[in-house]
Amino acid sequence: MRTFNFSAGPAVLPTDVLEEAREELLDYQGSGMSIMEQSHREGAYEAVHQEALENIKELLGVPENYGIMFLQGGATGQFAMVPMNLMHRGIVADYTNSGAWATKAIQEARTQGRVHIAASTEEEMPARVPNPQELHLSKGASYLHLTSNETVSGAQWQAFPDSDEPLVADMSSDILSRPIDVSKFGLIYAGAQKNLGPAGVTLVIIRRDLASGVPNTVPKFFRYAEHLKANSLLNTPPTFSIYLVCLVTRWLKKQGGLEAMRQRNRMKTDKLYATIDGSNLYRGMADPAFRSMMNVTFSLEEESLESRFLEEAAKNSMTGLKGHRSFGGIRASIYNALPEAGIDALVAFMREFERAHR
Amino acid sequence: MRTFNFSAGPAVLPTDVLEEAREELLDYQGSGMSIMEQSHREGAYEAVHQEALENIKELLGVPENYGIMFLQGGATGQFAMVPMNLMHRGIVADYTNSGAWATKAIQEARTQGRVHIAASTEEEMPARVPNPQELHLSKGASYLHLTSNETVSGAQWQAFPDSDEPLVADMSSDILSRPIDVSKFGLIYAGAQKNLGPAGVTLVIIRRDLASGVPNTVPKFFRYAEHLKANSLLNTPPTFSIYLVCLVTRWLKKQGGLEAMRQRNRMKTDKLYATIDGSNLYRGMADPAFRSMMNVTFSLEEESLESRFLEEAAKNSMTGLKGHRSFGGIRASIYNALPEAGIDALVAFMREFERAHR
Repeated sequence: MRTFNFSAGPAVLPTDVLEEAREELLDYQGSGMSIMEQSHREGAYEAVHQEALENIKELLGVPENYGIMFLQGGATGQFAMVPMNLMHRGIVADYTNSGAWATKAIQEARTQGRVHIAASTEEEMPARVPNPQELHLSKGASYLHLTSNETVSGAQWQAFPDSDEPLVADMSSDILSRPIDVSKFGLIYAGAQKNLGPAGVTLVIIRRDLASGVPNTVPKFFRYAEHLKANSLLNTPPTFSIYLVCLVTRWLKKQGGLEAMRQRNRMKTDKLYATIDGSNLYRGMADPAFRSMMNVTFSLEEESLESRFLEEAAKNSMTGLKGHRSFGGIRASIYNALPEAGIDALVAFMREFERAHR
Repeated sequence: MRTFNFSAGPAVLPTDVLEEAREELLDYQGSGMSIMEQSHREGAYEAVHQEALENIKELLGVPENYGIMFLQGGATGQFAMVPMNLMHRGIVADYTNSGAWATKAIQEARTQGRVHIAASTEEEMPARVPNPQELHLSKGASYLHLTSNETVSGAQWQAFPDSDEPLVADMSSDILSRPIDVSKFGLIYAGAQKNLGPAGVTLVIIRRDLASGVPNTVPKFFRYAEHLKANSLLNTPPTFSIYLVCLVTRWLKKQGGLEAMRQRNRMKTDKLYATIDGSNLYRGMADPAFRSMMNVTFSLEEESLESRFLEEAAKNSMTGLKGHRSFGGIRASIYNALPEAGIDALVAFMREFERAHR
């Protein structure tokens, strides 16, 4: 039996996808080789690479004037690449500070130039992200950065700001969980290890005109324009990770695409928040108006009770529920691939635990 | 039956390793989850991470004053990170130009500062790399860079220079194929996709004192010092790729370590070069004094005959033999995981092909 895996990432993958990968791990489509043993410049892998890119384009409705790339280094790598590529466009970069991940993006941007904090909700409890209306934008800013979902605190942007500056979003923990209007963004990036595939590949979507004009002191390898030109084959890509992204995106299309995922995720989340709100033991840690559909955070009255909660959950085949070390509490990450049966099991367990310990 | 895969990389992996990975792909050691679904900050993965690092330390005999890192971005990423981290130590960086890969390293270094070419064999045919004695080193150089094995041309350094400057080596295509004296080097890097594992993880070994003092205009994410401090967990590492590195290095230890691999690789290579030298049809493309133990390059009299050679080889379950597009000819990449039976099959095929077409 598969464990119900509530880990914040690397996270659960669809069982169907893992079974397919296992089936052909030593012999990809009769080639007598694993897909990971094949040249990235030959037919079998090229077809996988292209399909993964096209599936993402189709699922997110990426407009024609955008390029899609598979890079390496995760969101943390993008914290550096974004300012290296875009800061030259203005005199300052606007950042929103919504918590742990936004803070890291800001720290890295400061190594590359001037940063202005357009709004901060970093210290607020219950946790939330800024409202589009409360942003103080700079004149002549090169871009505006936000973190669409704060994995640590469980707060998520519900609507995105309209801004004249290119909007740059770290969507690592909610990409492909709901439809978005890509044309509102200048650049979107996401580490794969939540909704896209395994750790080791990073999705970047950029409006093509933004990739040009980068100062020549930026290494070629860290320029988006070079990767766009090379169709993400500037160097050997992480082929097996991209193969899994291909299988995951194929699976998403079979599930009905992003609107179907949004509904399913909404249903899963509603069950869980209803359990929290209807209880005297659990307390949600994010402001209800900003609650995440991906990471549900809650606390129990005492830390000792939280340890007990985690222990007993593990005995019931539910893992990865410990809150982030900087934030505490319990966190249930319920990405696309977490089955509804996992939510039902968690809800049943939470009720039973409350009955026993209250 | 497994195809004999002579691809230059991504390349063949040990069949035992792939079988083990398949066996536990959906359920890693009774956890009910794949290793790629597990948090990089919990026990199961942490043990894999640590073992992979320790296996490399043991196999290569890495001294205590060196750090070992798993990064992302391949050798191409290191073409940028090396000058970003080391160029500040001097007024110029010395590079040797031994061919296609060295040229790329040089181009990227030039985005970061002054480069002096200490020796170039780029244009020579048959292909070779410089001799340690013919290097013209700069005064006040920050480091000396070389490419230990040129995957494209099939030429390899047989002995390394003694230099006062830190010696930096791109060992992507011959790491772990023979013992080396790590203490001669300041920094060694290698993309995984030849002898280490799948594409998507990069090994970097650095003398610890060289990591310090990097200008604060270099993004944190691209500083070796930060990754050393975080034990390669600064961000989510490519966990599944590192898991495969763990299995490959465990396999190497079972094979008897690097001296045993050197002997096995030497035996494999000798058979192949003897076949070339004993023939009237095949001509080696690398200078015999610099012939690679990893990539064996040879040409046939006419290109039409080369196409025929590749077609007939494919019919006999041997793939990946086409030479690099910039160099032409035939290339047999015979990394650690290519079994001796693969060499025997290739040698038998080459003799038969010569009989038929001569």
